[in-house]
Amino acid sequence: MFDLEQWSRTHLDRVERALDRWVTAEIPSGLNHGAPAQLVDAMRYAVLDGGKRLRPLLVLAAYEALAESPANAEDGAALRAACAVELIHAYSLVHDDMPCMDNDVLRRGKPTVHVRFGQASALLAGDALQALAFELLTPQNDTVAPALQARMCGLLARAAGSAGMAGGQAIDLASVGKPLSECQLRQMHQLKTGALLQGSVMMGAACGEPSAQVVTALKTFGAALGLAFQVVDDILDVTADSSTLGKTAGKDASNDKPTYVSLLGLQASRDYAQSLLREALDALDASGLTHAHALRALADMVVNRSC
Amino acid sequence: MFDLEQWSRTHLDRVERALDRWVTAEIPSGLNHGAPAQLVDAMRYAVLDGGKRLRPLLVLAAYEALAESPANAEDGAALRAACAVELIHAYSLVHDDMPCMDNDVLRRGKPTVHVRFGQASALLAGDALQALAFELLTPQNDTVAPALQARMCGLLARAAGSAGMAGGQAIDLASVGKPLSECQLRQMHQLKTGALLQGSVMMGAACGEPSAQVVTALKTFGAALGLAFQVVDDILDVTADSSTLGKTAGKDASNDKPTYVSLLGLQASRDYAQSLLREALDALDASGLTHAHALRALADMVVNRSC
Repeated sequence: MFDLEQWSRTHLDRVERALDRWVTAEIPSGLNHGAPAQLVDAMRYAVLDGGKRLRPLLVLAAYEALAESPANAEDGAALRAACAVELIHAYSLVHDDMPCMDNDVLRRGKPTVHVRFGQASALLAGDALQALAFELLTPQNDTVAPALQARMCGLLARAAGSAGMAGGQAIDLASVGKPLSECQLRQMHQLKTGALLQGSVMMGAACGEPSAQVVTALKTFGAALGLAFQVVDDILDVTADSSTLGKTAGKDASNDKPTYVSLLGLQASRDYAQSLLREALDALDASGLTHAHALRALADMVVNRSC
Repeated sequence: MFDLEQWSRTHLDRVERALDRWVTAEIPSGLNHGAPAQLVDAMRYAVLDGGKRLRPLLVLAAYEALAESPANAEDGAALRAACAVELIHAYSLVHDDMPCMDNDVLRRGKPTVHVRFGQASALLAGDALQALAFELLTPQNDTVAPALQARMCGLLARAAGSAGMAGGQAIDLASVGKPLSECQLRQMHQLKTGALLQGSVMMGAACGEPSAQVVTALKTFGAALGLAFQVVDDILDVTADSSTLGKTAGKDASNDKPTYVSLLGLQASRDYAQSLLREALDALDASGLTHAHALRALADMVVNRSC
């Protein structure tokens, strides 16, 4: 029986240590001026010691599902990819929380970055975190094959950009107070949250030289999982409280944002999340991958989580 | 005799057309929802029809200095690099102009992006422009060798990030109202402006397989040019008016920001700019490159410009 908790603990430990090492090292040691230190402080505050790290775990789980051996040559590439997607996720939260966006003061149970460091530093820290993600993917010491570096940069840029996460946030922004069809709501979430979750799966898989069949199956898996994540997020926004979530609950409703719950109702949203989970697991079956235990367990956790 | 004006006209035309094509195409055609259209509008407004395009011209000039033939196989890579650095530059201006940073309302003679589209859209447009830069560098159609894609992503990420442009902006932010030594001021500008200008030169050169000697020489050239650019910027902030600059003149002094003029005085700043120009041109001589006419002329233009 696969033990997700134990698997996660091992891999989260690797991710935390790697993030701790990398969200510092890129600052040249000769730079002792106060401001970059403050920038790094804000970057570290945004990234370290918080979050479920779902995206890094998806990268590593997809990599493991593909890899012949658990410690082969591209192991370092998968860890870099895991940290890079988390940096993109972290920067998006920093910017999303700013007063001109969601104006949120609480995140992962702590004051948001702009509350703690000021808006200008939050803006710059987010910008620098996005660049750092691409730095991580392009090590200058030849530890990752150049073609894989290029492939991962391309996947990450597309997942994060105007046809991915940033595009979804723009739809979100324009949708406040407007009625959306289910199709439009799905489109928004596919970009806003789904693109980076799917991108995490594809980046992890890219480290293991996937066949065309596997790529197709994992794309379907990632898309279903990404949408399920958001449906469950909408459910929890209504059913959980702020201390459980580590962020302000009920804010979608109070911000008059369209959600699955407001569109479909609570029970139909729960049913939809379960059907997306089945779709994701069916895709894994179709992939032919025999080591997809962690991917399978993560999908189950995403849909059946309580926070 | 090399004609910079004619050379620039030809290359600017290529860059403008490429930017016009690329700051749209990445949005999937199926997405007809209003918000991504608004995001793309803001991105296009930030990028198109404005600016001197110094960074793209540096990329193309460095590429030409290296390239055996003016239209060899990596020509497309150089054009992509030229546009990518401009996207990074454009995003940095969008974010820098926001109320929580410089709070500027005029840029290139037009209202700034947040004035025109609102702060949230400006924030997202900047974020999406950064991602788009890396999309441009990683075409999925095999037109650029994967190793070159990786090399250029690495150069751009480092030039833009916490040890480059974003780091310099953080120092700038922390320096308002504080006395800086000349060493600290230089360090700030080397990151804030110099890193991306130097990065432009190195990315152009990377498309032409430079020798170690050429890399060293062009690094020196790019560093001297980058610093000279900022010294001249500080001079023009004092000596030119807003309509000539296309942005608010005198804002450094009114914002109580340390500048070369405030530190060294006007004449010594002019002398310093000329000595940096000599250093840049000497580096080109040392490079052994025989087709560096455009790089030479651009350096001269940067130092002797009037706006």
